[in-house]
Amino acid sequence: MKKTLQKRLDTEYDRLKLLKTTFLGYPCDADFDYATIYRFLEFPINNVGDPFEPSTYRLQTKQFEREVLGFFARLLHLKEYWGYITNGGTEGNLYGMYAAREHFPQAPVLFSEHAHYSMKKNAHLLGLKTLIVKSAPNGEIDYADFEAKVRGLPEAIVVANIGTTMLGAIDKVPRLSRILAGHGVRSYIHADAALYGMVLPFVSKTLFDFRTKINSIAISGHKFVGSPIPCGIMLARKSAVEKLRTYIEYIDAHDSTLSGSRDAFTSLVFWYRIHTIGMRGFKKQVEYSVRLADFLVQELKRIGWPDVRQSYVTVAFKRPSERLVAKWELAAKDGTAHVICLPHETKAELRAFVRDLAADRKR
Amino acid sequence: MKKTLQKRLDTEYDRLKLLKTTFLGYPCDADFDYATIYRFLEFPINNVGDPFEPSTYRLQTKQFEREVLGFFARLLHLKEYWGYITNGGTEGNLYGMYAAREHFPQAPVLFSEHAHYSMKKNAHLLGLKTLIVKSAPNGEIDYADFEAKVRGLPEAIVVANIGTTMLGAIDKVPRLSRILAGHGVRSYIHADAALYGMVLPFVSKTLFDFRTKINSIAISGHKFVGSPIPCGIMLARKSAVEKLRTYIEYIDAHDSTLSGSRDAFTSLVFWYRIHTIGMRGFKKQVEYSVRLADFLVQELKRIGWPDVRQSYVTVAFKRPSERLVAKWELAAKDGTAHVICLPHETKAELRAFVRDLAADRKR
Repeated sequence: MKKTLQKRLDTEYDRLKLLKTTFLGYPCDADFDYATIYRFLEFPINNVGDPFEPSTYRLQTKQFEREVLGFFARLLHLKEYWGYITNGGTEGNLYGMYAAREHFPQAPVLFSEHAHYSMKKNAHLLGLKTLIVKSAPNGEIDYADFEAKVRGLPEAIVVANIGTTMLGAIDKVPRLSRILAGHGVRSYIHADAALYGMVLPFVSKTLFDFRTKINSIAISGHKFVGSPIPCGIMLARKSAVEKLRTYIEYIDAHDSTLSGSRDAFTSLVFWYRIHTIGMRGFKKQVEYSVRLADFLVQELKRIGWPDVRQSYVTVAFKRPSERLVAKWELAAKDGTAHVICLPHETKAELRAFVRDLAADRKR
Repeated sequence: MKKTLQKRLDTEYDRLKLLKTTFLGYPCDADFDYATIYRFLEFPINNVGDPFEPSTYRLQTKQFEREVLGFFARLLHLKEYWGYITNGGTEGNLYGMYAAREHFPQAPVLFSEHAHYSMKKNAHLLGLKTLIVKSAPNGEIDYADFEAKVRGLPEAIVVANIGTTMLGAIDKVPRLSRILAGHGVRSYIHADAALYGMVLPFVSKTLFDFRTKINSIAISGHKFVGSPIPCGIMLARKSAVEKLRTYIEYIDAHDSTLSGSRDAFTSLVFWYRIHTIGMRGFKKQVEYSVRLADFLVQELKRIGWPDVRQSYVTVAFKRPSERLVAKWELAAKDGTAHVICLPHETKAELRAFVRDLAADRKR
């Protein structure tokens, strides 16, 4: 290999290695080691098409993909399921809204102000009319406004936030369902549980999974699970995606996923992570992360930092200087920034961060 | 690591390693070695959002992504460009059709019978009316039928096949443009050049790139370039995507890509491949592949196998027994199967394949 090429790669590697030590703001765990499965990158593997259907393309890892889907189906209390491993949360949310449109082609889609920015993008792509519902100060959907907006609608597509991006707020699905039923609105509910889909099952009794009336859910793989490559789970009641799958078959489009050619490596990533950590391991990781968040809240209050709020592993607070936003890679919007507490972080790191905050204020 | 886990992974690795030796039918090169860049998988890298805009998410490889886009812009003769590295051909084609819809919201989309199956899926997702144009026996679009279908339309979205999936046929973009202009049809032309976008520039004078009137193009990375993870290039004239980008900004959806979180590893894969092989290397690879295809045609004719047709690296022929379709991972549709000749293949392998065909016919 040419020397300049090697040098360029080394420089980039060193840059990333250094940045990893101040990586607090994004909900992506960084504490993983997939060296054992790198060797699968020797092959042009591809999970093209439906995970449950055979293909002549045999350089694939669909058996692993199906086992991962099975794990999530058990975790989320769903028996009759269909789904696939996506390229990330956005694709999973898009799929949910797409399946919903097949049920209710004329219905608007409702989600709150605090929903992820990609929802508007997805709605535009699908040509859905959007009704943006107000959010309460804690980031949760405003139920009164939701009720006002669905009243009189024959049908509605609803995206519930299971952990909003900024505040980690959770829309109460049973309450949304009751409001919809109370007004006789036929509906399809999709849950965006990008981060919290892997958090809540281990530390909370909050109902958000298939024991509620959700039809589908999207969970990211590169967030709590941890992956060097963005990926996610789209899981749906079999009945919820039947219409779409039938139509796709009818137009002879061969496969019911959005992507066609699909990453077969992330199926191994998910599978490996599940098998090396396990249910009990994930529970420990989530508990550790919540304790870290509790600790950070204490520390922030100790120095009197304003607007501190916590939801499980999400700690939001008044936005600090741009220098610190950049240094600690904080996600920030308007006057608020947050830290997401994850297994790769430590109390020492959080202490250093809080010291930085305190010092910065004095400058 | 648990023994059972290790064993399961070893078994899968061995299965894939064996299959790689009989992998002829799909247009995916398998002759690559990315071991040098595996170490970047230690980080939660993510090229979230627009490749040309800064982000506080600094664990990214966007500089590499931009250089890859620059390489393709030069290859395809485009000066003012925008684009990004996608998760594969389907996403690139979807983006092209999406940008087209922003220009002509009421226009139907036209593509030929031989277009990739994902076009119908994409059109349905976008809510576009489709007009399927007949294909000539060689797989190329039927220009007379195209003319009949666009006549009288004020606007049209056209997807041109630059190498059809089965026969490698090429729709002549200048001819399509002339027909559209002749009837005063305003149009947006997207080119699906999944495989041939990396083949034609090196061996053919056929005009398909930005010297024609195409507005955008999609090329796969896991096909001719070679990648263990599906990926692709979406490249567009800056003017072609301006409307969509403005709208996305207007709805505050933050980024103009479809995915949001985006694979940062495949940017390194593309970049590494381009820098280790180079323009001259790619030219040699393409020439080698075309020679292999010539050789295969000779061999098939020698044993008198029916319906042999060639387009550059694609060799189509009468579908053999299901046993051989499976053994050699041939892509097959109705009565036709094909082999795509790629750098990872050898004459010896093709000879073994033809021997298999000859023997099978006698059974």
